[in-house]
Amino acid sequence: MNLNEYIDHTNLKSSATRFDIEKLCTEAAYWKFASVCVNPIYVPLASGLLKGTDVKVCTVIGFPLGANSVRIKMAEAEEACENGCDEYDMVMNLAALKERRYSFVVNEIAAVKRAIRGGTLKVIIETGLLTEHEKDMAVKLVCEARADFVKTCTGFTEGKATVKDVELLKKNVDLFECTLVKASGGIRTYEEAAALIEAGASRLGTSSGVKIMQQAIDAGAI
Amino acid sequence: MNLNEYIDHTNLKSSATRFDIEKLCTEAAYWKFASVCVNPIYVPLASGLLKGTDVKVCTVIGFPLGANSVRIKMAEAEEACENGCDEYDMVMNLAALKERRYSFVVNEIAAVKRAIRGGTLKVIIETGLLTEHEKDMAVKLVCEARADFVKTCTGFTEGKATVKDVELLKKNVDLFECTLVKASGGIRTYEEAAALIEAGASRLGTSSGVKIMQQAIDAGAI
Repeated sequence: MNLNEYIDHTNLKSSATRFDIEKLCTEAAYWKFASVCVNPIYVPLASGLLKGTDVKVCTVIGFPLGANSVRIKMAEAEEACENGCDEYDMVMNLAALKERRYSFVVNEIAAVKRAIRGGTLKVIIETGLLTEHEKDMAVKLVCEARADFVKTCTGFTEGKATVKDVELLKKNVDLFECTLVKASGGIRTYEEAAALIEAGASRLGTSSGVKIMQQAIDAGAI
Repeated sequence: MNLNEYIDHTNLKSSATRFDIEKLCTEAAYWKFASVCVNPIYVPLASGLLKGTDVKVCTVIGFPLGANSVRIKMAEAEEACENGCDEYDMVMNLAALKERRYSFVVNEIAAVKRAIRGGTLKVIIETGLLTEHEKDMAVKLVCEARADFVKTCTGFTEGKATVKDVELLKKNVDLFECTLVKASGGIRTYEEAAALIEAGASRLGTSSGVKIMQQAIDAGAI
């Protein structure tokens, strides 16, 4: 297992400075992580720093509440795209999901997908706020809209990535044969990371990527 | 003290449905709160429901991370304005503050102020993430940009409204004779609300407005 290739190396703190993002990008290039995940203001910086590496630049859309308009989510996506972004983690409109306005949910995801012009789209469904039925439905809608990943949590409200949820999501995406699973929210150790990958996650969002790699080395796992 | 007139009755949960917002508006109209504070998708609904009352509609801009571009913050503000919004709680670009790019901070606030065409602008400085010096500086910049309020916290990251911070902010705004103080983040009881008003807050952001009013009545305070 190439553990590093699973990791979206993440710093979404509102107080993160240029210095913090430079450090994040340096670490990501050193460890050959899948991507760095940064707030929209840092897409130009990360994109410049990581030019010539295989590390992708990922940003967030409608984050972390998902409760802004389709128009704003599209504008955020377009701007990031112009700034050299590769991957986009958007938050689903959870109110629309809970009110069973399913075509709205699908159309919103599809609209953002168009705005990113072939980029990788991950849709955060915030598992900690959903019932089991809502989780099933959310995955179905993400697949229907042809997003690339369904992602568990933002890490900013209740809920964290659990093996149980990742298994549930994985079972559902396999059913629709379309989408991968990204686990995120509270992933802090190699043990947790390995369990989530075992459960079916193809990507892990974490701010503890370096620590997780070092623990994996100490454990003789890589 | 007309306690009700201090309260921005707030529901910014990502899972809040139309039903929750209708309830929020009904409560706000009954108690004659200063405003309801809702996510951008609910501005049209709240604005319609509260027509003919004195309750203002407030939304959030760049919330809760403040780490999106000036262009997106302006687009969010303009859209809310078109949808009938009266008050706007924006999150300061905290990275720019910490990197001492002060003219950027002032210009961003001023740009949002222009976009809301005479609406009330509150700037959240996220006191829980700032040093004492940064808090002083943040207030100075908010005043310089002629925003209407400086606001303590988003409630989504570390930190909550404290008497000490409200006193500090109040002292600073009085120095510049321009801006009022809104306390928010973790205000749950009448006792806390009263202490923050005593410390100098002119507005309180809380999701516990109804409970606070009932406690005030029980305490014989109103």
